[in-house]
Amino acid sequence: RPPISSILTTYSTCLSPCSFCQLLKALTPEENTHCQNGLFFQDGQRRVDYVLTYPVKKPGGGRSSRQSVQLLAENAVACSLRRGPHNGGEDLRHHQAQRAGNPSCPQSLPMADLEGGALNGHEDHKAFRREEFEGKLRDMGLELEKEEVTKIPGVGFVKIHAPWNVLCREAEFMKLKMPTKKVYEVKQSSGIVEKISSLVSKVLEPLHPQVEEHQPKNIKHLSHTFSREKQHFLLGSGVYTAAYPLHDVSSIHLLYEEWANYSVFYKYQPIGLVRKYFGEKIGLYFAWLGLYTQMLIPASVVGVIVFLYGCATVDDNIPSMEICHPKNNITMCPLCDRVCSYWKLSTACGTARASHLFDNPTTVFFSIFMALWAAMFMEHWKRRQMRLNYEWDLTGFEEEEDHPRAEYEFKVMQKSLRKDKKSHHKMEKLTCRDRLPAYMANIVMMLLMIGVTFAIVFGVILYRISTKAALHMSSSSITRNHVQLTVKTTAAIINLVVILILDEVYGAVARWLTVLEIPKTDKSFEERLIFKTFILKFFNAFTPIIYIAFFRGRLVGRPGSYLYVFESYRMEECAHGGCLMELCIQLSITMLGKQLIQNNLFEIGIPKLKKLIRFIRSKQGAFQEEERQKKLQRYETDHFLEPFAGLTPEYMEMIIQFGFVTLFVASFPLAPLFALLNNIIEIRLDAKKFVTELRRPVAARAKDIGIWYNILKGVAKVAVIINAFVISFTSDFIPRMVYQYTYSPDGSMHGFVNHTLSYFNVSHFQEGKETLDPLHLGYPVEICRYKDYREPPWSATPYEISKEFWTVLAVRLAFVIVFQNIVMLMSDIVDWLIPDIPKDISLQIHKEKILLVDHFMKEEQRKIHILEKEQREGEREEGCELIRSGRCDTNRLKTIALEISKIM
Amino acid sequence: RPPISSILTTYSTCLSPCSFCQLLKALTPEENTHCQNGLFFQDGQRRVDYVLTYPVKKPGGGRSSRQSVQLLAENAVACSLRRGPHNGGEDLRHHQAQRAGNPSCPQSLPMADLEGGALNGHEDHKAFRREEFEGKLRDMGLELEKEEVTKIPGVGFVKIHAPWNVLCREAEFMKLKMPTKKVYEVKQSSGIVEKISSLVSKVLEPLHPQVEEHQPKNIKHLSHTFSREKQHFLLGSGVYTAAYPLHDVSSIHLLYEEWANYSVFYKYQPIGLVRKYFGEKIGLYFAWLGLYTQMLIPASVVGVIVFLYGCATVDDNIPSMEICHPKNNITMCPLCDRVCSYWKLSTACGTARASHLFDNPTTVFFSIFMALWAAMFMEHWKRRQMRLNYEWDLTGFEEEEDHPRAEYEFKVMQKSLRKDKKSHHKMEKLTCRDRLPAYMANIVMMLLMIGVTFAIVFGVILYRISTKAALHMSSSSITRNHVQLTVKTTAAIINLVVILILDEVYGAVARWLTVLEIPKTDKSFEERLIFKTFILKFFNAFTPIIYIAFFRGRLVGRPGSYLYVFESYRMEECAHGGCLMELCIQLSITMLGKQLIQNNLFEIGIPKLKKLIRFIRSKQGAFQEEERQKKLQRYETDHFLEPFAGLTPEYMEMIIQFGFVTLFVASFPLAPLFALLNNIIEIRLDAKKFVTELRRPVAARAKDIGIWYNILKGVAKVAVIINAFVISFTSDFIPRMVYQYTYSPDGSMHGFVNHTLSYFNVSHFQEGKETLDPLHLGYPVEICRYKDYREPPWSATPYEISKEFWTVLAVRLAFVIVFQNIVMLMSDIVDWLIPDIPKDISLQIHKEKILLVDHFMKEEQRKIHILEKEQREGEREEGCELIRSGRCDTNRLKTIALEISKIM
Repeated sequence: RPPISSILTTYSTCLSPCSFCQLLKALTPEENTHCQNGLFFQDGQRRVDYVLTYPVKKPGGGRSSRQSVQLLAENAVACSLRRGPHNGGEDLRHHQAQRAGNPSCPQSLPMADLEGGALNGHEDHKAFRREEFEGKLRDMGLELEKEEVTKIPGVGFVKIHAPWNVLCREAEFMKLKMPTKKVYEVKQSSGIVEKISSLVSKVLEPLHPQVEEHQPKNIKHLSHTFSREKQHFLLGSGVYTAAYPLHDVSSIHLLYEEWANYSVFYKYQPIGLVRKYFGEKIGLYFAWLGLYTQMLIPASVVGVIVFLYGCATVDDNIPSMEICHPKNNITMCPLCDRVCSYWKLSTACGTARASHLFDNPTTVFFSIFMALWAAMFMEHWKRRQMRLNYEWDLTGFEEEEDHPRAEYEFKVMQKSLRKDKKSHHKMEKLTCRDRLPAYMANIVMMLLMIGVTFAIVFGVILYRISTKAALHMSSSSITRNHVQLTVKTTAAIINLVVILILDEVYGAVARWLTVLEIPKTDKSFEERLIFKTFILKFFNAFTPIIYIAFFRGRLVGRPGSYLYVFESYRMEECAHGGCLMELCIQLSITMLGKQLIQNNLFEIGIPKLKKLIRFIRSKQGAFQEEERQKKLQRYETDHFLEPFAGLTPEYMEMIIQFGFVTLFVASFPLAPLFALLNNIIEIRLDAKKFVTELRRPVAARAKDIGIWYNILKGVAKVAVIINAFVISFTSDFIPRMVYQYTYSPDGSMHGFVNHTLSYFNVSHFQEGKETLDPLHLGYPVEICRYKDYREPPWSATPYEISKEFWTVLAVRLAFVIVFQNIVMLMSDIVDWLIPDIPKDISLQIHKEKILLVDHFMKEEQRKIHILEKEQREGEREEGCELIRSGRCDTNRLKTIALEISKIM
Repeated sequence: RPPISSILTTYSTCLSPCSFCQLLKALTPEENTHCQNGLFFQDGQRRVDYVLTYPVKKPGGGRSSRQSVQLLAENAVACSLRRGPHNGGEDLRHHQAQRAGNPSCPQSLPMADLEGGALNGHEDHKAFRREEFEGKLRDMGLELEKEEVTKIPGVGFVKIHAPWNVLCREAEFMKLKMPTKKVYEVKQSSGIVEKISSLVSKVLEPLHPQVEEHQPKNIKHLSHTFSREKQHFLLGSGVYTAAYPLHDVSSIHLLYEEWANYSVFYKYQPIGLVRKYFGEKIGLYFAWLGLYTQMLIPASVVGVIVFLYGCATVDDNIPSMEICHPKNNITMCPLCDRVCSYWKLSTACGTARASHLFDNPTTVFFSIFMALWAAMFMEHWKRRQMRLNYEWDLTGFEEEEDHPRAEYEFKVMQKSLRKDKKSHHKMEKLTCRDRLPAYMANIVMMLLMIGVTFAIVFGVILYRISTKAALHMSSSSITRNHVQLTVKTTAAIINLVVILILDEVYGAVARWLTVLEIPKTDKSFEERLIFKTFILKFFNAFTPIIYIAFFRGRLVGRPGSYLYVFESYRMEECAHGGCLMELCIQLSITMLGKQLIQNNLFEIGIPKLKKLIRFIRSKQGAFQEEERQKKLQRYETDHFLEPFAGLTPEYMEMIIQFGFVTLFVASFPLAPLFALLNNIIEIRLDAKKFVTELRRPVAARAKDIGIWYNILKGVAKVAVIINAFVISFTSDFIPRMVYQYTYSPDGSMHGFVNHTLSYFNVSHFQEGKETLDPLHLGYPVEICRYKDYREPPWSATPYEISKEFWTVLAVRLAFVIVFQNIVMLMSDIVDWLIPDIPKDISLQIHKEKILLVDHFMKEEQRKIHILEKEQREGEREEGCELIRSGRCDTNRLKTIALEISKIM
């Protein structure tokens, strides 16, 4: 027996690879038959864990510019792959040096190669590279099988199998947790609590997916031996065209049945299974999405109640009653100079009534509720994450520091080469000065992009203003009546289309900017990319909404001196009843449109289209679909699937949605409901995509959702202040309160409408500004009214801003301060009251730790007893020698184990 | 050789206890001679690690009510002490059960004992308990020496020595980190950075304390084997009177020289030494205090600059110039009805000029600076803490969950006994319902106490008002001239005295309330106590200040209809020039007074007094001081010192000071300077106290400063909003801005004073309210002025609040919103920009981890080689048997080690 396997016996007692195969076979008796050759090597024994594809007989060219990067990368891969337990101390030291950030390995390459990148980048060269790489893989203990004559012409496959001992070795390096044989019972809580919880779980029973935990708990899925980071360099340089692990038919089937299926939308997700199949990172995404959707249920219920309250009380609302009442028929001033004429307030009756649906006192309560909801959601996620970490044995797992990216190392090397000519001092990292141009480009481009967003919003405003003006001037009364509707609808659609297009553009810009920055590690690359993309998409989605909420109708002037842009277009005004209604319309169109179009069109349609194109291109449509499906090997069918592109788009979509749900919730209480409906579909849609549309992603470990959590937190914080402003400035809540408690003669809302309208004497119109049709209403008008707090014409300072305006403004601002601080305080209290780690989990972790220490101590005790006994039994020289050497090792081992246990 | 020591050989190779003693002896050749018997056992070899004292020949009584608690506690101690590596599996299980929160151990006691507490609580009984306890200590491997015939009559001493193997065993349980023999060099940063840092360190050289790190790095101070928590039960029940470790003369000397000495005030503290002598918890306190003091230096520098700017520009300040100018001599309305008369504005010239010192535009900048300073301080502390954790090898240390407190277990037992009569269901914890009365009492008492604070503040206000009124009516003009000064001074002194008294009362109340709550663990007890004490002391210290800042002079009415309390006393008004001046006076008196009195009187005086009393009482003054000092053993001299009472008062004092420094810094830019001066003394004062006045505290491990950090964070958050309000409402900053940019005819401040004064027509005085002395100024007055924004008598609504008032109010509120959000955003950015873990530390931790894994792998490799060779060499049956059994153990050990390393 080779010594290395003897070390691993303890591992293999748990589960030998064979028993795994048998399990698989047993589970998938029928389906497996034709895929048997695809899922396993030709011998039918060794599983295909990973597949690399490359082009055969097709000359690839024009990639020589990336040669140097590729060379470097490959070398780095070789360096890190070469390490292994059977190599001596020298290699270990090598490895240390490399880990410590000293790129000694790449420097061993001839410098000429790096500088010029002069090697011919042709097929021969690539084949040579492949040979070399595959040789290194074999050196590592992996088993390879090549398949060049496949049913897909022009594509060669390398199937890789990782034997059990390689998996074990790598698991050790990755510090995976090993379950011990020792099991213990988790104590149930006692008494009434137990009964209630059992009742709850019985009620929730049908909601749980029917996934038997058919695999015993102490089996770990150790599929992937080399990290993706090293591989994609080779992919990028065209040596290989694709690299992916294979889908597992049996698991896929189960996942499809219990997860990626619309018919199970009401059930919990089988997160454990998802994590086992796709890895922790994707598992966490779905767990997060699941919790978010779950948390949306109470939010939508409350939102619907608030909306229904609005519906129910719309007829009791005194201000809208006053507007609609035919007796208080107030003559309003023209809304623009010359072309517009006087109008009756009662024509605004419809919008005033509709406004009440969203602009009633419960919205204040609802936005406080949603702020607390967001805090609660964050807390619950922290707890859920902790629970998952515990269940997935990630509690001790620390994210490894990434190796530098190849682009970064290349840049560093270039720099040090340049420096070498001047001095002998070696630079080992990029300083701020090196990155300054990239940073400057970043800032400038980001500002430019945000400027573009603003410009587009402004453009849409201009469109609205000008179309409105043009239509106003048209003589046809039907056209004029439909002015509002036409303009609003077209503007919203233009807005939506622009947002969708810019979303794609911004994604590309953010990626390009991040590449410019040359971040050191993959993690930092991802974080910077996400941050930039988020900023751009956030501005893109919310700028038009923020305009409507806070700027529209604020700087419009007054009758007789309206404010103009470009000297001919009047600034927009909100319809009577406040801007809240418009905000609500804009919000719902953007949110629904984005969700429908981005989800259905982009997420379902485009992958399907791409798959079709890839299929057509490679097969030229010669085979028939069904026949092909049967005859193709698993690794060939997977080749037609879309490669996995990361979770960023999925998260981004959800975060922007979270923004819609929280940021302006005061104006649109139905947002959580829409989000909920979308997400119920979204979960299954994403699941379907992962199961059927994408190549199986390489499993990645993760403890948390990373930067997304911080972004969520930021959005929740911004939501508080934005909601405070929406309530106090966009809605009529504060003016109504002020009127009721200070100006109202009888403490009721009667007279509020009259109070908000200022007086204008039509004789004060300047030359050329008076309306062309003064008798439009059928009677001459002397005094007309407009919505603003200004002094009446008969005061000492006519048309100046009045004291009421300042009073209301002060109260509005005071409300913002009070609201913001109270809600922040309450969020902090929620944060403080809910412990981050669920009590049962912390207890269990503690208990497990004690059990393990005890187990360890007992084992040691036993060993000492044996040694003692043997020492007593005989003093034979030879045996003693052996014992002593053994004991010495034991002690040393123990010491080391202790040290390790401390440092981790 | 006993087997246990063979395990420990690896430990003892590092340092045997003997070499430690020799080291000690070598270091303290002279001083040690007369203390030799005190510091060591009679054999002069074994060190005294811990001392317990008890009363001899004195009947102790009246403690029987605590008997049951004591019984329980003692049993728990016994239970947890009994565990040890030489006990079998049963004990381990026992221990597990106990740790898991199942108090199986205490329940084995006869229930009758617990219920009645009927055993006679006399000397015999106590002696028996002592015997039992000491027996258990001996069982654990500790060595004891009793000394009843000492020079202090009535006090017996038990000296405890913990042998090396016991220390090692406990170290293992506590998971202390073992330094390996392997050392590695920390790589220095290269180039210019290195040169700069070496230059900086050379400059700072004299600031570092002259403490050679004379002990090699790989020696750990493993002094204290049993945790204090278990001991103080026995202390509380009177079985022992005191328990303390001994002071170590040599270390004390070094600490005294380089730390607890005013002459080294400019140096850094020898934190490593402090931590080594007093433990991590106290080390962290001094490190925190040191960083805080250090951070105060830039704050005080900027504060002084701001103050000097105020001084320099006092003559250019247009508003105060206008007030002082004899030409614009404005006649002001009387400040009270009837008795007061008209006065000239120019008499307020002095206060107006003084106000400018603190109320100038730089204060806005300064309060933003201080908010960022606070954020920076928090970040720096996180980093410092992380660095200390790394240096003190605490990175892997996790705070153990505390055992339940004896009071808690007693209550649980009582409850379950009560329940047992009804049902057989065992309750194992206190529910919310059990605690409801205590919680209610807490809330009621807290509110009551805060109410008392408010009442006292109100009382002081009344005192001020009434004294002022009385003095006003006195005929002597000299008395009347000194009215202001007398009233202010006496009121401030009364306030200060009340604050100091209530501080002590509140400390006691908080402790009593926390005891009522029966928290489960010591940690929770401490946290609840701190929280309550903080709330009460915070209100106590800041209520009078908040009153002055935000309420004084707000609701005073106007001439002719002043607002009265109790129908005879007019509400207070601030002197002309704003309340900021008064706020500043109040702040400085409170802060300085608190610091001077609490520091000098309470912290130095009272311990000295107590020490004297204890000495006099026990010796009855028979011996002479000097003679006694010489003859007493070390453990006897330590007995006269004050016991260590925890760090809470020290932290509390500093947090309240932090409040003074940050909360109202906008009004008092010199606060950081005062705090800095105080803290420079405070550090050495505390150090002196710890070194000379207190018994040596039991070393406690801690990773962070716990709840104090959260309190600091809370204070920093509150500071932002309070400063925003101080700037916008207390200072004249906003009215000045508003005047300058909207009302001023020429954009300057000229006319501001006139603008802030409203008009009053003296003929509008109601009957009986007009002044008795209308010709006080020598001419008849028709229109007088008063400071407020009200309509003039000739407007349509005379004396109503004017539009200017609302404008200024709106701007004030807008400023609060803008200030708060900008400062919070900037704090968040600071938080985000400064990484929590210093880069070099995170690199080093990473490097160490890799080194350790490599070390471990290499060791394993070596072992496998040996085994392989042996396997090849011979196949002798016997040797093979042994090897195999040895190998098996090795494997298992390795597996376990791996598991442990994962779980930690």
